[in-house]
Order: sequence, then structure tokens, then C-alpha cells
Amino acid sequence: MKLGILGGGQLARMLALAGLPLGIRCKFLDPAADAVAGHCGELLVGAYDDPALLAQLADGVDAVTFEFENVPAAATQWLEQHLRVAPTPRALAVGQDRLAEKTLFAELGFGVPKFAPADSLDELRAAVATVGLPCIVKTRRLGYDGKGQHRLREGADQAAIDAAFTELHRPGHGGLIVEGFVPFDRELSVIAVRSRSGEVAIYPLVENVHEGGILRRSRAPAPDVPAAVREAAEQFVTRLLTHLDYVGVLAVELFLAGDRLLANEMAPRVHNSGHWTIEGSVCSQFENHVRAVLGLPLGSTAMAGDGFATMLNVIGTMPARTAMLEVTGAHLHDYGKKPRAGRKLGHVTVVERARETADAVASRAAGLLRETAKPGS
Amino acid sequence: MKLGILGGGQLARMLALAGLPLGIRCKFLDPAADAVAGHCGELLVGAYDDPALLAQLADGVDAVTFEFENVPAAATQWLEQHLRVAPTPRALAVGQDRLAEKTLFAELGFGVPKFAPADSLDELRAAVATVGLPCIVKTRRLGYDGKGQHRLREGADQAAIDAAFTELHRPGHGGLIVEGFVPFDRELSVIAVRSRSGEVAIYPLVENVHEGGILRRSRAPAPDVPAAVREAAEQFVTRLLTHLDYVGVLAVELFLAGDRLLANEMAPRVHNSGHWTIEGSVCSQFENHVRAVLGLPLGSTAMAGDGFATMLNVIGTMPARTAMLEVTGAHLHDYGKKPRAGRKLGHVTVVERARETADAVASRAAGLLRETAKPGS
Repeated sequence: MKLGILGGGQLARMLALAGLPLGIRCKFLDPAADAVAGHCGELLVGAYDDPALLAQLADGVDAVTFEFENVPAAATQWLEQHLRVAPTPRALAVGQDRLAEKTLFAELGFGVPKFAPADSLDELRAAVATVGLPCIVKTRRLGYDGKGQHRLREGADQAAIDAAFTELHRPGHGGLIVEGFVPFDRELSVIAVRSRSGEVAIYPLVENVHEGGILRRSRAPAPDVPAAVREAAEQFVTRLLTHLDYVGVLAVELFLAGDRLLANEMAPRVHNSGHWTIEGSVCSQFENHVRAVLGLPLGSTAMAGDGFATMLNVIGTMPARTAMLEVTGAHLHDYGKKPRAGRKLGHVTVVERARETADAVASRAAGLLRETAKPGS
Repeated sequence: MKLGILGGGQLARMLALAGLPLGIRCKFLDPAADAVAGHCGELLVGAYDDPALLAQLADGVDAVTFEFENVPAAATQWLEQHLRVAPTPRALAVGQDRLAEKTLFAELGFGVPKFAPADSLDELRAAVATVGLPCIVKTRRLGYDGKGQHRLREGADQAAIDAAFTELHRPGHGGLIVEGFVPFDRELSVIAVRSRSGEVAIYPLVENVHEGGILRRSRAPAPDVPAAVREAAEQFVTRLLTHLDYVGVLAVELFLAGDRLLANEMAPRVHNSGHWTIEGSVCSQFENHVRAVLGLPLGSTAMAGDGFATMLNVIGTMPARTAMLEVTGAHLHDYGKKPRAGRKLGHVTVVERARETADAVASRAAGLLRETAKPGS
């Protein structure tokens, strides 16, 4: 079987690495000639909405998927006419738009931060008044890793609101959304997969730590989460997957404030907070996404060997390979990308039979990363 | 980093899949244009001893290794002049020749079946008389998967010996060896890896079941092996690795007769009886071979999650992918090769926290293979 993927970055690369053992090969379309998925599959280089390249991508593949949600609508529309595309354009449309996703979360009965849309400066002023301070002004579209956001603190004045508008508003880019600032205790995520036949499988809840808007560390299963919280997250993601008639892996980022769970945003794709599943799960998020979008049965989302996983992101600079490989139990993932400040270049996963051991090994690995992390970048 | 590999079959493919997450890419040389390692790396197509292709293989790689031991001497000699080659030609030379390996095993003080060389019909008659019946006549070189062997049963006469000679003897192919038939109880293998710096790591002992000369099933750790047997195997392989100044993964096939351990043959490469290490070990034989030959530190050879692994080979025909993926806990490896009777097309690994569970899941998976296995082929 063959799978086409829009995007040729590390997510596409890990999808391809998961597919190859199953006898499934991937083909990629990416504007960058050095896109790293090209290391393990055919890479087409050019614009995502180039019909000739889309035709080449579609040629001989059984389905097409995406490694990122900000796919041009023209691309999905073209592809949908010719072959199976998963997740569906509906899920992509929701995942592309912070307003649509928060509205849907609320419709499905799930807690969300207070929010209000704003397409003009007047609307932004009104929205901030509605939501209250402190709050965060975000672009509805194309934000990721903390980009496209502006925080308004307690006591922010009109000038601060005007500055946020000037910084973020771009005509034709889909407007803004104001979200109430949630004084959360912890960030969690839930990653789940749904098959074509409607089967749903959910990975253990993940605890995430961000710095400067970029994910730094994930731990699974998230420690010390009350059963009721876990069940609420699982019920919510199941409802969301079913509502969207979703096929593939979906991630939802959550805030835990006391015992109150709020949905922050969703990603209609494999997710950075699920990279630990490569070693930590019986079947990784990458293999399960490949299985789902190709109409194959899902694999088990249980922890491999009842283990505990910790994942660290490698940002900006790779650690010395030899030093990292000397850390017994640290699984290095070097995406083969060119180093650049703030860029996700790789990750390291530790899976151990005890949470304490996983954390201890991860600390050793983190020591090799410390100088390279650039909080706030 | 980059690694060159002579051979582009499934072993090279799994080496490449292990290297990619480490940021290491592989380049292959294979006579077959459809060699499956080409799915995840650059494939050069042509003869192993073509100097122009060897130069292309060597260009830009940090070391060269092999996926099989029957490499033309001209190839290794050429490569050795230009870059680091591992394992060493000495280890390859021993691994290519059943007489050299049995002689070395005996020199290192390890038990071997009775054996005697035979380069002519007269010598074969004498060798059979020395070794006694029943015995097995083998080609010294180029035998694999039960090929190049002829068994002489109790009471075999001169005509049977003559027939064996006629079948197996080929001028210029390195002569024959007669080995005493060992009425063994079990077949085991020990897989170990040695780094450039001389560090040795050993995987848990494996129990193997062959049919028709082809490996069908491996289980690790091998059940019910006395500690003394395990220690003897570990001491032997350590001695062998050190004696050969070996770098990379080495496998030794063993016979267990009562509590007597005999060495059958060695493979100076990653080995079919170690495929379970992909999911079953903290660091697989493939990743450890890549690490060793590139001068990187070794990874842990411990079982992942203290689990129990069972591996089944897929011979001749792939099972239905959907049916196999429905077996929870079965990890499918489809090499992407064209089906052919007796050909190794893939394998399935099960890793569970209890031996009984691993065996039960493997039985379900084996049920899907049964019709496709061709014992005796």
C-alpha cells in the first residue's frame, strides 16, 4: 500500500518510518527540497496547491493525509475529487480555526476558556471587555508554537489593545479571537485515533510542559490525574471524533485548573505530545494514524510493558550524539533538520518500568540539552 | 552520519530504519534493482565487486558494513583501502567458511560437533569414516537456510556418499565439511555486539525452531535455560568477539544436548533470530550494529519492559495484512519483497509481560501464517 502526505517534515518522516515495517510506503509533497521526510520516501517539491504536483502525489497512493492542519483549501478540494483524504476537510477546517474549534468544543458540552471573536479594532475592544483581563489575543488561523499570540495583562489599557491589534491583524488572514487567561495548574493532552469503521482508541493522558510557547517535556501516563478527569477527557475526545466522523489521530490540548478540565485547542494530526508513543506504546500514534487513514484495523494504545514514558524536545541545537547515546535508556530521535534557534530538531524518549526511573534517566538526558534550549525563542 | 551497506535486502532495510531516528542515513549496493532497502535510502544497483560502484558507495559515508557474509573478497579489499569496514575482513573470512569457524570455535575451547574437511571424493569417504554416521555433508561456503547440505543417515553406503559429493562439490567453491549429526534437544542462539572501544553487550539467549532448514520461530529470553548454560554461551561469544577484534553484531547458533552446549555456526552480522529485538529490547540489534560500526556507544541489550518476545518468520506468502493487524500486540514486519516459495518475506513479533501471553498472541498470529509456511521448501 502507499500513502500520500502533504508536508515532508518530521511528522511525515515518522509516519513513513511507522509505515515501512507494515509494507506501506509514503510519498510527500513539500515546498522545501531538503524536507527531511525525503530521507525515507519519494519527495515531490513544490507548492501545496500546484495541481500538477497534487496529481503526482495522488498517483498510485491509496489515500492522502497531512502532517499539518494549515493546508490550502484548494489542495484538499482537488484531492477529495480524486481519492480518499483523511482526516476529513471538515476536521481540518475546525482545526485551522481557533474560533471554530472553541465553538465546537462548547457545543459538545466541554469547558473552554471564555472567548470572543474580533475582526476589527472596535470588535477587539468589545471582545476584551466581554472576556475580561487578563486575556490572550490570538490569530484565528496559522498560529503554532506560541506564534500569533499577544497577552494582555491585568490593567492593560486601550493602547495595549491597539498594539495587539496592530501586531496580529492581517487583512484576509481570518481575524482574531480573544481568550480569557486560564490560571491553570497543569497542561494535559489527550491523543486518540478513530478508524474508518468508527472504532476509537485513546492513549493514556499526557502531561505537558511548555516554555516560550514550545513544548519542552511530555510525560505519560500523566501522573496524579484523578480518574474523573481522565474519564472526562476520554469522553470528550470520543464525542469530538464521532461528531466530526473523524479518521486518523487527533490531539486535544487541555488545561487542568484544580479539578476543572478545559479544552484549549485540537490538532487534527499526529502531535508532538505523542512522540513518546514510538517506544512507549504497543502501537505508536504514527502507526495508528497510518493504519486509520488506510482503512486498516487500529493497534493497541496501551503502554508497552506497562511502562512510564518521558519525552524531551530538542530545540535549536542537537546535543552531541555520542553523549546522548551514552545515556542508557534514552531513545534519540534526530530528524536530520538544519539547526536554527527555536526549531524542533529532534526529541528524546525514555521508557522505564517505574516513573522515578524514567524521570531520572530523562534528567540525565535533559542535562545534555540544557544549554541548547532557548526558552522564549 | 552516513553508513554504506553491501546488500540491500531486509537486513539492510532494518538497519536503515534503525539508523534514521539517530540522524544516520544508509546507502546500499545490491545487484537487484528492486532491493527493498531502496525504500528508505539510496540504492546503487550493480555487482558487489564493481570498483566504480564501490567508490560511489564509499563516497560520503563514515563506514561500510554488510548485510551478509558472502561478500566478494575483492570488495572488502577495495573498501578497506579507503575507509573503515566493520566487521573486519578476518571475521568475515571466518564467517564465510564452516571449516574456519568450527576450527576457531574449538581453538577457543568451545564444544563443536565432530567435523572433518573434504576436498575430494576420497577425502569425503575418509572424513565420513572419521566423523561417523549419521552425519551432514555441507559446502564450506555459501550455504544458508539449509541449502548446500546433504544428510547421511545411519547405514548410508558408499553410493550415498558419492551422491552427496556429486550434489555438493563444485570446483573452486571451497570444498566440503563433514559434521557429526548432533541429536540436540533445542536450538539456541546468542546475539552480541562489540563496540570499537571493546565494550561487549549480549542479548538474552534465544530459543529457535527451524523447519526445512529455515528459521520459523524465535523466543527470548529462551525459556528454562540453566544459568550455567547461559553463562557458558555468554563467555564463549565474548571470547569470540574479543579474539576477532570484532566490531558490530555477531550471532552464534548453538545446540543444546542435555546440558551440553555446542556451537554450530556464526553469522558476522545482524541475524534473523534477533529480529524480535526491534520491539523486545531497549536497543535493537539493528540500532546496536549501526552504533557499533560507526564508533558510537552501545545501547542496552536488556528486554524492553522486562517483557517476553516471540518472533515468527513469514515464509513464501504474506498473510492478509488486515487479519494480522487485528491481532492485538502482533507487530507486523512486511519487507516489501515479491512473494516466492521459501522466501523470507517478513516477520511478526509479539512482546508481552508474561511468557504465556506472548505465546498465546503468537499462536493467534501463527494461525494466519499456517497455510503459507512451506516446511521443507
